[in-house]
Amino acid sequence: MKWPERVTITEVGPRDGLQNEGVPIPLEQKIELVDRLSATGLTRIEAASFVSPKAIPQMASAAEVMAGIQRRPGVTYIALVPNERGAHDALAAGADEISVVVSASESHNRSNVNRSVAESLEGVRGIAALCREARVPWAGYVATSFGCPYEGAVDLQSVLRVASVYRDAGAYAVALGDTIGVGSPGQVFELVTALIAEVQPLPVRLHFHDTYGRALANTVAAMQAGATQFDGSVGGLGGCPYAPGASGNVATEDMVSMLERMDVETGVDLEALLGVAEFVQGVVGRRLDGKVLRAAMASR
Amino acid sequence: MKWPERVTITEVGPRDGLQNEGVPIPLEQKIELVDRLSATGLTRIEAASFVSPKAIPQMASAAEVMAGIQRRPGVTYIALVPNERGAHDALAAGADEISVVVSASESHNRSNVNRSVAESLEGVRGIAALCREARVPWAGYVATSFGCPYEGAVDLQSVLRVASVYRDAGAYAVALGDTIGVGSPGQVFELVTALIAEVQPLPVRLHFHDTYGRALANTVAAMQAGATQFDGSVGGLGGCPYAPGASGNVATEDMVSMLERMDVETGVDLEALLGVAEFVQGVVGRRLDGKVLRAAMASR
Repeated sequence: MKWPERVTITEVGPRDGLQNEGVPIPLEQKIELVDRLSATGLTRIEAASFVSPKAIPQMASAAEVMAGIQRRPGVTYIALVPNERGAHDALAAGADEISVVVSASESHNRSNVNRSVAESLEGVRGIAALCREARVPWAGYVATSFGCPYEGAVDLQSVLRVASVYRDAGAYAVALGDTIGVGSPGQVFELVTALIAEVQPLPVRLHFHDTYGRALANTVAAMQAGATQFDGSVGGLGGCPYAPGASGNVATEDMVSMLERMDVETGVDLEALLGVAEFVQGVVGRRLDGKVLRAAMASR
Repeated sequence: MKWPERVTITEVGPRDGLQNEGVPIPLEQKIELVDRLSATGLTRIEAASFVSPKAIPQMASAAEVMAGIQRRPGVTYIALVPNERGAHDALAAGADEISVVVSASESHNRSNVNRSVAESLEGVRGIAALCREARVPWAGYVATSFGCPYEGAVDLQSVLRVASVYRDAGAYAVALGDTIGVGSPGQVFELVTALIAEVQPLPVRLHFHDTYGRALANTVAAMQAGATQFDGSVGGLGGCPYAPGASGNVATEDMVSMLERMDVETGVDLEALLGVAEFVQGVVGRRLDGKVLRAAMASR
């Protein structure tokens, strides 16, 4: 077994986490969450999503979040955008980096943004042009890379097709999203190996949901295949839009705890991150699922 | 990445699971649990523990459990025993197989059974003699193999020392227990590799607790090192005696679900097992932590 000596973690709790909590969070608490996270050693935080607040009310006031946070030196504040208009707004709001998402499966993409995959990829070229002009890097996410809630199995080639459009359009990194958490270690190893061959020298990032408890196993498999970037959500914040009550993103602190034990550097202070996870439980008013959080609270 | 084509799962929910639930379970429900489990395709069930009911009240009436269950052909009903007296009782009660446990760390063994490791290993020889006479196979578990709640890090050599006593005393399998769930995939790979070299051709079994969410990642690492036997607890039944509220054994159905996706044969019917997990929630009166169970209940 071999794996990288250090990995880079992107905290997506303020975006993917809060987006799926289903309760409105006041602007000040969104800002406080980002600021608390930036004090833990995390160097990358997805702070907001520039989507229509009509579509996703939890993501309203993205520009106000970006304006209100303390810009800690060395921390990259990332914004997710669904289209050129979102990219325009995110860049105007001072995002350091942009994330775009297109699904590998037609029906998920259609359900998510009411466009075909080809139409979305056309939009990516427009976003890429805006980012180039603003000299802001962007990363391309392939949603439903390991399975689709509507179509089931997703062909490896359709994942690589989206990834290669990202590469050709100038993405600085390509990410695979396991939107519904169905990926298994073998599948992850195979797909990440193929993706690295397709997009190298671009770094490959993984965005795992822990719906079936396999996110950490998948993280190790991805590292064995050579991936060096991972997304996590503090406390395991968030949930699964297709199965309310099921787990959401992998808990960032569970990932950090495992990586520490594997001597993989993350730069994140685990105790500090656990403190933020406890804060987040207060914000969303429920006990979060993160195992390390639960163990820490139980052992007091 | 390589792993075995099939693994053998031992269901320990009726023993390690119930033992840590902290609520008394009526005899009929213990029996019903074992009988429901044997209908899922599981071929190995740890049904009872022949310990002093004064020490662990939840394990009272072990002989009655063994007498009351339906002996399904092809299923091995296993009893855990702490000493020769327990082995005598378990054999008299008709156990098909015996499990013995000694800790790798002195202070955990002392706290667990009030004996030194050397005294416990001396007792193992007596248990082995009883099993030999009864022609019943026994497996040796090394508790705290990956870390001790009192001593912290546990030396690899002290684990191998206990394992080699098991081998020499005639164990048919050797198991490593991650009593407090602190093991990491790298450590598991290293220790399982060393253990296989030490005890081959005996099969190596892993008993993971999911305290920090790493049990499935550790399962994959152990398979990569060549392990072919794993313990699980239906629904994730049980908890951590050192941190009440933290997770217990890895949920059997989470393991089965992952292995299915990796094309590893287990012989277990996942849907049937999920049905038992729901039954168990009623028995213990709380929502269990198994992720696949939670996702299944959420998607209805």
